[in-house]
Amino acid sequence: MTARILIEPLGRRVAAEGVGSFFLFGAVIGSGIMAEGLSGSDVALALLANTLATGAILFVIIAMLGPVSGGHFNPAVSLVMAARRELPWKDVAPYVIAQLVGGLLGALAAHLMFDLPLWQVSLKARTGVGQWVGEVIATFGLILTIIGTARARPGLVPASVALYITAAYWFTSSTSFANPAITVVRSLTDSFAGIAPGNVAFFIVAQLLGAFLAAAIGKQLFD
Amino acid sequence: MTARILIEPLGRRVAAEGVGSFFLFGAVIGSGIMAEGLSGSDVALALLANTLATGAILFVIIAMLGPVSGGHFNPAVSLVMAARRELPWKDVAPYVIAQLVGGLLGALAAHLMFDLPLWQVSLKARTGVGQWVGEVIATFGLILTIIGTARARPGLVPASVALYITAAYWFTSSTSFANPAITVVRSLTDSFAGIAPGNVAFFIVAQLLGAFLAAAIGKQLFD
Amino acid sequence: MTARILIEPLGRRVAAEGVGSFFLFGAVIGSGIMAEGLSGSDVALALLANTLATGAILFVIIAMLGPVSGGHFNPAVSLVMAARRELPWKDVAPYVIAQLVGGLLGALAAHLMFDLPLWQVSLKARTGVGQWVGEVIATFGLILTIIGTARARPGLVPASVALYITAAYWFTSSTSFANPAITVVRSLTDSFAGIAPGNVAFFIVAQLLGAFLAAAIGKQLFD
Amino acid sequence: MTARILIEPLGRRVAAEGVGSFFLFGAVIGSGIMAEGLSGSDVALALLANTLATGAILFVIIAMLGPVSGGHFNPAVSLVMAARRELPWKDVAPYVIAQLVGGLLGALAAHLMFDLPLWQVSLKARTGVGQWVGEVIATFGLILTIIGTARARPGLVPASVALYITAAYWFTSSTSFANPAITVVRSLTDSFAGIAPGNVAFFIVAQLLGAFLAAAIGKQLFD
Repeated sequence: MTARILIEPLGRRVAAEGVGSFFLFGAVIGSGIMAEGLSGSDVALALLANTLATGAILFVIIAMLGPVSGGHFNPAVSLVMAARRELPWKDVAPYVIAQLVGGLLGALAAHLMFDLPLWQVSLKARTGVGQWVGEVIATFGLILTIIGTARARPGLVPASVALYITAAYWFTSSTSFANPAITVVRSLTDSFAGIAPGNVAFFIVAQLLGAFLAAAIGKQLFD
Repeated sequence: MTARILIEPLGRRVAAEGVGSFFLFGAVIGSGIMAEGLSGSDVALALLANTLATGAILFVIIAMLGPVSGGHFNPAVSLVMAARRELPWKDVAPYVIAQLVGGLLGALAAHLMFDLPLWQVSLKARTGVGQWVGEVIATFGLILTIIGTARARPGLVPASVALYITAAYWFTSSTSFANPAITVVRSLTDSFAGIAPGNVAFFIVAQLLGAFLAAAIGKQLFD
Repeated sequence: MTARILIEPLGRRVAAEGVGSFFLFGAVIGSGIMAEGLSGSDVALALLANTLATGAILFVIIAMLGPVSGGHFNPAVSLVMAARRELPWKDVAPYVIAQLVGGLLGALAAHLMFDLPLWQVSLKARTGVGQWVGEVIATFGLILTIIGTARARPGLVPASVALYITAAYWFTSSTSFANPAITVVRSLTDSFAGIAPGNVAFFIVAQLLGAFLAAAIGKQLFD
Repeated sequence: MTARILIEPLGRRVAAEGVGSFFLFGAVIGSGIMAEGLSGSDVALALLANTLATGAILFVIIAMLGPVSGGHFNPAVSLVMAARRELPWKDVAPYVIAQLVGGLLGALAAHLMFDLPLWQVSLKARTGVGQWVGEVIATFGLILTIIGTARARPGLVPASVALYITAAYWFTSSTSFANPAITVVRSLTDSFAGIAPGNVAFFIVAQLLGAFLAAAIGKQLFD
C-alpha cells in the first residue's frame, strides 16, 4: 500500500483524509441524530426497511446495467459524466428522458401493486435550509463516490453506491434524494417517499450544486 | 467506462437507463408504501428478519452450488435457461422435480425444527390484481438480474440475486415469491410464509409471465 | 456458465438443485416461523442485532486469519478438514484447544466489558428434538458451505460463511450454534447467548452428526 | 488451502485460531449482552441504524479514498502505519490534523443539516473500567483487522473494516469509538453519538493501548 499511496502528493493525501473523515464523522453523528429523532416512532423501522430495499436494488441495477449504459439512473450523474467527457453531451437528454419515463413507470407500478390510485400528488413538506444542505451534501458524496471508486476500484462501484445511499438515508436530514429525476417522480406519490411538488425545485438546485462541487473537488482528488 | 459503454448503441443504453430507473424508483416508492403499511404492527420486524435470512441464504447457495448446477432452485429460472439454450430441455424436468422435492424436505425440516405438525395447509389468502402484478414484476426483475449480471459480471451473481430478493420482499405487494416451486411448497405451511393453495395457480401464471417478459427484454438488452 | 456446468453429471447437478432448494425453502419458511414466534417480544430485535454482529465478525476473522490458519474457529470444521486431509490429524488437538482457550477469553472479555461477573453458568434451557434437529441441519449446512464454496469460489468463503450463519440464526430453532467449542463456552455465560451446561452434550452430538453428514454428502457433491 | 496454510508454523496457526475464536465468541456473547440490555428501549433500534450507517460509510470511504491516502481517517491507524514504516513519520501530523479538521466539519455539517446549534458540548458520560476495556479491545481488533487483511486479502479491506465496526458497535460496551480523532469530535455533539469532554482522555489512552497491542501481536501473526 505504502509504495502506491506515496506516489500521491502529500496535499492530495491529506485532502483525502479530510474528506473521508468529514463523511465518516458526519455519518456517525448525523445518523445518531436521525435515529434518536425517530426513536419511539414507527418511522424508524419504516426508514430502515426503505433503506435496505433502496441500497439493495442500487447494487443490483448498477451491477446488471452499468456495463450497458454506465448505470446512472440519475440526471446529476449523467451531467457530471458529460462534463468529464465520459458521456457525449448529445446523449444527456435521452438519458434523462429515459430516467424520468422509466422511473415514472416504476412509481405507477408501485401504486398498481399496492392497489393505490395510479396518479397521486404528494402532500409531504420537505423544505428548509437544513434539508437543502442535506441534499447538497448527499449529492456531493454520491458523485464523489462514483468518480473516485470508478477510478481505482471499478469493481466496487455497485457496492459503494449502494452503501453510500444506505448511509446517507440516515446521516442527511433530507434522507438523501440526491437525484433530480427521482425528486420529480417522488412528487407524484402521496406515500412515505413523497415530496410536495412545491418543494421539488429547491431540492434539485441543491442537488445540482452538490454535483458541481463533487465534479470540481473530484477532479483535484482523483484525476 | 466510457469507451466500453459507447460500444453499445444509444437505443440499448437508453433502454437500460429506463429499466434501471423503473426498478430504482419503484423500489424506493414501493418499499416506502410497504414499510408504512406495516408500521406499528409486529409484521414489519418479522418481514425484516425473513428478508435478511432469505437474502443471506440465496447468496450462500448460489455461491456454493452455482458452479455445480447453475444454481437455479426455481423452475422459472430453469425454463428461461432452457429457452436460452444454457440448459438442455431434457434436464428441465429433473431440475424442477429436484427443486420441488428438495424444497418440500426443507419445509418439513422447518416444521420439525420448530416442533410443528409436519404436514400443514396454509390458510393465508394472497390474491388480487395488485399482488399478481407484484409477482409479474418480481419475477421479471429476478430473471433480468440473472441474465444481465451473468453476462458481464458473473462473479456478482450471488450478491445480485440475494440483494434483488432482499429489495423485492419490500417493494412488491406480494413480498416476491418469484418462484413456482416455492409457491407450491409454501402452500404447505400454515405459517408466516404460507399461501392458501387456492391462490397458488394465479401466482404461478404471473411468475411465468414475468419470466417470459424478462427473457424477451433480456435478449434485447444483453445479447 | 452452461459449458461449465454441463461437465458435471446430471445426477450431481440434480442433487445440487435439491440441496439448494432444501436450504432456500427451509430458510424462507423457518425464518418466517422464528420471526412470527418472536414478534411482539423484545427478543426479535435483540436476535437481529446478535445476528448482525455475529455475521459481521465471521467475515472479518475469516478474511483476516483464514490465510494463516484456515480460519476454522470451530472443532467441527477442524475435524472435517482433517478427515479431508486438508489439516494434519496431529494438528486437530492444538486447534481445538486454541479455539476453546481463545473463545473462553472472549467470553471473559465480554463479561469484563459489560461489568458482569467474570465466571457465570448459564441457566438457559436449550433442549428438545426440534433444537437437536436444528443443530444437525445448522452444522450440516455450515460445513457444506465451507467445503463447496472453498472448492469453486474460495474468495467468497468469508462472505458465504458469514451469510450462512446470518440466515441460520433465524431459520433453525436452536439459533444455530453449529460449533462444539462455542457451545461449551456459551454454557459459561448467563446472558442472551447462554446454554445450560446440562444441554451442551446433546448439542455437540447433533453438531458432530451434522458435520459427518456434510463431509459425506460434500464428497459426493463437490469432489 | 492446506498447502498454503501449512507453510505457516503451527504456533502461528494456533495463535490465529485463538485470536479468531476470541473475537467470534466474544462478539456472539457480547452482542447478546448489549442487545438484551437495550431490549425494550428505543435505543436498540437507534443503535442499529447508527451501526448500519457507520459500517456503510466506512466501506465507501475506504474503497474510494484508500487508494489515494491509505484510508486511515483515524490517528491510531496513522500511528501504527508509521510504526510499520508504511507511512513516513513526518506525514503523521498532517494526517491527524486533516482527520480532526475534516471530521469537525462533518460534525458541524450534521448539526447544520438537522437544524441544531453548530457548536455543542456533549453531556453523555461514557466512563468506567468496562468501557475502557471495551475501547482497548475495539481498537486492538480494528488495527489487527487492517494489518492482517491488508497483508493477504487487500481487496477485502473495505468490507472487513466496515464489518468489524458493525460488529464492534454491538459487542463492546463502549460501542467502539476506536479512533482518537472521532472521540475528540464526538465530545462536540450533544446527541446520540456524544461523549462528555471529561471522558475523552481515558478513551484515547485505551485506544492507543489497543493499537499498540495490535501492532505488536500483528507483527507476530502476520509479518
